[in-house]
Amino acid sequence: MHFEPTDHPHRRYNPLIRQWVLVSPHRAKRPWQGQQDEPDRAIKPAHDPECFLCAGNKRVTGDINPDYQGTFVFTNDFAALMTDTPLAPESDDPLFQLQSARGTSRVICFSPDHSKTLPEMSVPALHAVVDTWCEQTAELGRDYPWIQVFENKGAMMGCSNPHPHGQIWANSFLPNEAAREDESQRDYFAEHGSPLLLDYARREQADGSRTVVETEFWLAVVPYWAAWPFETLLLPKFAVRRLPELSQEQRADLAVALKKLTSRYDNLFQCSFPYSMGWHGAPFNDEDPRHWQLHAHFYPPLLRSASVRKFMVGYEMLAETQRDLTAEQAAERLRSVSDVHFREQA
Amino acid sequence: MHFEPTDHPHRRYNPLIRQWVLVSPHRAKRPWQGQQDEPDRAIKPAHDPECFLCAGNKRVTGDINPDYQGTFVFTNDFAALMTDTPLAPESDDPLFQLQSARGTSRVICFSPDHSKTLPEMSVPALHAVVDTWCEQTAELGRDYPWIQVFENKGAMMGCSNPHPHGQIWANSFLPNEAAREDESQRDYFAEHGSPLLLDYARREQADGSRTVVETEFWLAVVPYWAAWPFETLLLPKFAVRRLPELSQEQRADLAVALKKLTSRYDNLFQCSFPYSMGWHGAPFNDEDPRHWQLHAHFYPPLLRSASVRKFMVGYEMLAETQRDLTAEQAAERLRSVSDVHFREQA
Ligand SMILES: O=P(O)(O)O[C@H]1O[C@H](CO)[C@@H](O)[C@H](O)[C@H]1O
Ligand SMILES: O=P(O)(O)O[C@H]1O[C@H](CO)[C@@H](O)[C@H](O)[C@H]1O
Repeated sequence: MHFEPTDHPHRRYNPLIRQWVLVSPHRAKRPWQGQQDEPDRAIKPAHDPECFLCAGNKRVTGDINPDYQGTFVFTNDFAALMTDTPLAPESDDPLFQLQSARGTSRVICFSPDHSKTLPEMSVPALHAVVDTWCEQTAELGRDYPWIQVFENKGAMMGCSNPHPHGQIWANSFLPNEAAREDESQRDYFAEHGSPLLLDYARREQADGSRTVVETEFWLAVVPYWAAWPFETLLLPKFAVRRLPELSQEQRADLAVALKKLTSRYDNLFQCSFPYSMGWHGAPFNDEDPRHWQLHAHFYPPLLRSASVRKFMVGYEMLAETQRDLTAEQAAERLRSVSDVHFREQA
Repeated sequence: MHFEPTDHPHRRYNPLIRQWVLVSPHRAKRPWQGQQDEPDRAIKPAHDPECFLCAGNKRVTGDINPDYQGTFVFTNDFAALMTDTPLAPESDDPLFQLQSARGTSRVICFSPDHSKTLPEMSVPALHAVVDTWCEQTAELGRDYPWIQVFENKGAMMGCSNPHPHGQIWANSFLPNEAAREDESQRDYFAEHGSPLLLDYARREQADGSRTVVETEFWLAVVPYWAAWPFETLLLPKFAVRRLPELSQEQRADLAVALKKLTSRYDNLFQCSFPYSMGWHGAPFNDEDPRHWQLHAHFYPPLLRSASVRKFMVGYEMLAETQRDLTAEQAAERLRSVSDVHFREQA
């Protein structure tokens, strides 16, 4: 019997965070009798008087949103971090280690139009979102080493408001994932003399089997080591370390790539496809970040349909992430649908 | 201003898996407008003719379950691993690493009574579950290095059948979490000459502020570094490496500890409290596992009520786990409810 990755259980290695994922492609055949979530197929109004992110509306704190056009940024009314946390006493106890944490969090409204999500916005409007990500990162990067730009989309991903918005959390410390990616990229660069994710993008471009979207400057793939069923990694095809370093051309093209990628997502199950996405770039306290390559991760939970998600529970929490289809099969499915959003098709 | 862990954001370090968790205790105040799940308060029949785990019923494969009493174990009809996967060709490509994986998975019905979950079972019936965990682990440990015993409880945790049951997955490899815990415990033992989790249990016992349940041989705490709101770590108060090594006395007392811990969980929000739980013990291919200490993790998703869970999304997936109450606050809440299940109270 020969080993076949599409039939046989195997593990793949994620060199960026240095852990394995168990791939069990034959398991997609099992019947599903568990929880079904409500698919999001609602058409929303362009302005919702109850929404605390719509232009001109009142927030929980009593503040009134301006009558904004384009994007609108404000400090989160219930931030997980504060700018002025006092220092905690240091401890060298190996079992009880604590350090104080400072930071801030902001909300970014992507558009005044309550009814639109990223794939339904125009390319120029998406360019404005990219510009806001870049400006905010540059501004906060003057005070903090780690700036986490992200979006939780959909109720399934804990998003409490359907108004198109993302968040940006600035941290006085390097969070776990950042520290891991920093280390792996540093070691790879020391050994190979080029950034891990730039080498990886070139290999993926040449191979093509995991490619979902390719534009002039950007490449979105289901990474070889994907954990979530339809996870993607959005990579620049050129060396770049941080969001603010992107040129206007690269930003405009990123808007195109984002529109295509998120449209393919929505088209897969003809619903507003939930996910968490976010950007990773070189920490701002690193003076020689040649090993870093800017990238975005998209982590969508859906597995079988608009209402059946992958549960990362039990074995996954206690032992190892496990997936039910190969990265190549997931990429193939995302390529088989249009990159024009179903609501925009003639 | 003085640093106060109950008011100020801080990070705590998990020495077992070597990562940090961000604690934002002031954030519990924010209003919740997001997804609500259906709390599980249903009373179920003792036998459900539609259930494929009930005694005498037919499974999806056509197999008929025996008329079992006590526990019943069978090989999962849709196992994520197979016993005979061929070896994959080896590769030293740093970006595309794959290895084939072998194993098996079994389902353990805890009881023929469809209506009961662990906290509602009698102590002798729980002792039988503990015995089954121990026997299965011993048997599979003869062929595989890692035996993952676990339970996914509740629809929120991807459990597709309310019949009381758990699973056991045997692996030809050391999964990520096992490898991490092996390394951290090995290093700690080399430096301190005693097992990390035995030292930790003694410190927690002396402190008491994170203790939820203590019996003659067992201690359940909300660990200092808990990630999930009401996460607990169930620790033996004596040195022991693997489930099969437990004496009859220690097993009987474990049944008592399990009944108390899971009853406190159900009592917290007066519902069937969802969680994933599982056991970690020394790998079976380790001939000198003196650094290992057997333990169980309980990862429950609920945060505010029977219907509002903690979403580990966005920032958590991309940066670092974040929690909204301290471990001490969570332990205090679990201690404030009875250790007698609400359905068994007079
Ligand atoms: O094996 P089950 O109960 O069908 O499936 C459940 O547990 C598995 C092991 O934790 C997970 O991989 C699945 O996502 C989950 O739905
Ligand atoms: O900040 P929000 O949108 O209120 O909250 C959401 O995103 C946060 C950051 O990922 C998470 O910590 C919360 O669990 C989630 O519900």
